[in-house]
Amino acid sequence: MTAAPAPFRRVAVIGLGLLGGSVARAARSRIAGVHVTGYDASAEVRARAAAIDLADTIAQRAQEAVAQAELVVFCVPVGAMAAAAAAVAPYLPAGCIVSDVGSSKASVLQALGEALPNHTIVPAHPVAGTEQSGPDAGFATLFDRRWCILTPPEAVDGQAVARVTAFWEALGARVELMDAAHHDLVLAVTSHLPHLIAYTIVGTASDLEDVTQSEVIKFSAGGFRDFTRIAASDPTMWRDVFLSNRDAVLQMLQVFTEDLAELQKAIRKGDGPALFDHFTRTRAIRRSIIELGQDDARPDFGRSDH
Amino acid sequence: MTAAPAPFRRVAVIGLGLLGGSVARAARSRIAGVHVTGYDASAEVRARAAAIDLADTIAQRAQEAVAQAELVVFCVPVGAMAAAAAAVAPYLPAGCIVSDVGSSKASVLQALGEALPNHTIVPAHPVAGTEQSGPDAGFATLFDRRWCILTPPEAVDGQAVARVTAFWEALGARVELMDAAHHDLVLAVTSHLPHLIAYTIVGTASDLEDVTQSEVIKFSAGGFRDFTRIAASDPTMWRDVFLSNRDAVLQMLQVFTEDLAELQKAIRKGDGPALFDHFTRTRAIRRSIIELGQDDARPDFGRSDH
Repeated sequence: MTAAPAPFRRVAVIGLGLLGGSVARAARSRIAGVHVTGYDASAEVRARAAAIDLADTIAQRAQEAVAQAELVVFCVPVGAMAAAAAAVAPYLPAGCIVSDVGSSKASVLQALGEALPNHTIVPAHPVAGTEQSGPDAGFATLFDRRWCILTPPEAVDGQAVARVTAFWEALGARVELMDAAHHDLVLAVTSHLPHLIAYTIVGTASDLEDVTQSEVIKFSAGGFRDFTRIAASDPTMWRDVFLSNRDAVLQMLQVFTEDLAELQKAIRKGDGPALFDHFTRTRAIRRSIIELGQDDARPDFGRSDH
Repeated sequence: MTAAPAPFRRVAVIGLGLLGGSVARAARSRIAGVHVTGYDASAEVRARAAAIDLADTIAQRAQEAVAQAELVVFCVPVGAMAAAAAAVAPYLPAGCIVSDVGSSKASVLQALGEALPNHTIVPAHPVAGTEQSGPDAGFATLFDRRWCILTPPEAVDGQAVARVTAFWEALGARVELMDAAHHDLVLAVTSHLPHLIAYTIVGTASDLEDVTQSEVIKFSAGGFRDFTRIAASDPTMWRDVFLSNRDAVLQMLQVFTEDLAELQKAIRKGDGPALFDHFTRTRAIRRSIIELGQDDARPDFGRSDH
C-alpha cells in the first residue's frame, strides 16, 4: 500500500483545545510532509501548546497562522466561530479551504459564510471527544474509526469536498456527507440531548435536601457516575451548542419529556409489563452499537479488571 | 497479616445471575475453606452454573441448597424475593442468617421478614454491577473497593451484622450501615433515576420520525452510547426495582423534571450565563467521584487507547 498524496500540505488549526490539539497531532502523525500551524486566542494556551510541541509552528497572531494555509480548521466553541473567522478574514490566502469541528452545523455554516464569503467552506463535525478539555487533552488517535460528518452547502466545489474528505480519512475517521439541518437534528438526539440530561441529573443530585452530596458521590457506581463523566464536559462548548442548536434540541427534549411521563405513569400505576417491554426493547440498540464498532463490549467498558 | 476466621463456613447462594455468580466466585476465591452451594430456579441456569464451576455444589432443589447453610444470600430480582424465601423457609436451619443483594431495601426487608419470621435478616446491597446478566456474567472481583450497604432492622442481633459485614469485606467490599428507607432514597438518585432516564432516552431515540435508528447507532459516540450501556441492564431486575422503590423514584423524578424544565427555559430564552453556570457546577462532582476512587480518571474511561 502506497501513501496517498497529502490532501493539504499546509494546515492551520485555530483553537488548541481537545479537538484542535487532536487535529494537529493526528495530522502530523498521519500525513507525511504536512506542516501544521496552530493558534489560540489565549496566550497561556499558545505557550502550553508550544511547550508540548502540539504543532510544527505555534503562531503568536491569527494572521500568521493562516498566512500560507491551504486548509484552515476552526476548532473553537461554536459561539466563537464568527469572531475567529472575522479575525483571519483579511489574511486568508485565495483558494484556502475553510473547515471546522463544531458540534452544530447550520449556525456555523452561516457564521463562517458571512465572515468568509469568498472562500470555499466545508464544515465538519468529527463525532468524537472525551470529557477533558485544554491543549493537553488532545491525542492523535481520537478520530480513529469515528465518524466525521461533512455538511457542505449544496453549491460547493466537489473537489474541495473530496480534499476535506481525504483529510479526515487520513486522520483515521470515516466520512459521511449530510445536510446541515439534518445533522443538527441527528446530533440533537445522539449527543446534545444526552448531555443536557446528564447535566440536569448531576445538578439535581448535588442539590437535594434528603440526600447529601457525599452520599451521592460515595454510591455513584450504581449508574450515576456515567452521567457525571458526560456532565464534566467543557461548559463553554456546551453552552454554545445548546444556544446554536436550540430548535432541534427543544424538539427532541419535548419527545423525551413525553416518553419520560409515560414511564412515570407506568411506575405510578405499577404497570410491570409496560416497564418490562420498554426495558427489553432498549437492549437491542446496545447490541447494534457494539456490532457496528461504536463501543466496547466489555462489561462496564472494561472498568472492572477480570 | 493473618487471615481472619471465615465469617461463615457454609454459604448458600439463591439465584445465579451476575450478582449471585459474583458472590459465589468471590466467596470461593477470598474465603479459605468456605463451601458455597448455588441454586437457581431455572434448570438451564443450574446446568450452565455447574458447567462453569460457579459453586462447590449446584443444588437441584432449593431445599438442598440451604440444608446446611450458615448464611443464605438471595440474589434474585427484588420482586422474586418473597417467593424465593418462601420456597426455602421450611428447610432453613435454625440460626442460619439471611441476606440478599437487592437494589431496593425497605420492600425486600419486609418480604424476607414475612417469609422467614424466625431468622435473623441482614439485608445487603452491594453497589456494583455491569450491564450484563446471567451465570456467565459473574466474576470474583466485582465487589472490590465497591460499597456494600447493609440495612439491618433496628432490633437485629449485632453479632449477625458483624458477621455479614465480615463476609462482604472478605469479598472486597467496603461496608456501610444505613436505614432501609434512607437507602432507598439515596439509591433512587444514584442508580434508579439514572437508569430510568437512560431507558427513556434510548427508547426516545429509537422511535423518531425524522432520524433513523441506523443514524442514531452510527453517531452514538457523541454521548448517547453511554446511555445505551445502562439501558442494556437486565429488564426483570429493573422492572422490579421501579415497582418496589416507587415512592422514592417518583419523588426524585419530580425534582429532576423541575430542573430539566429550568434548563429548557434557559435554552429557549437563550440564557447563556445560566447554562454556563450550571455546566460549571456539575464538573466538581465528577472530580470528587474520581478522588474517592469510585471511577477511572482516564478520559472516556480509557476507551480510546492513547
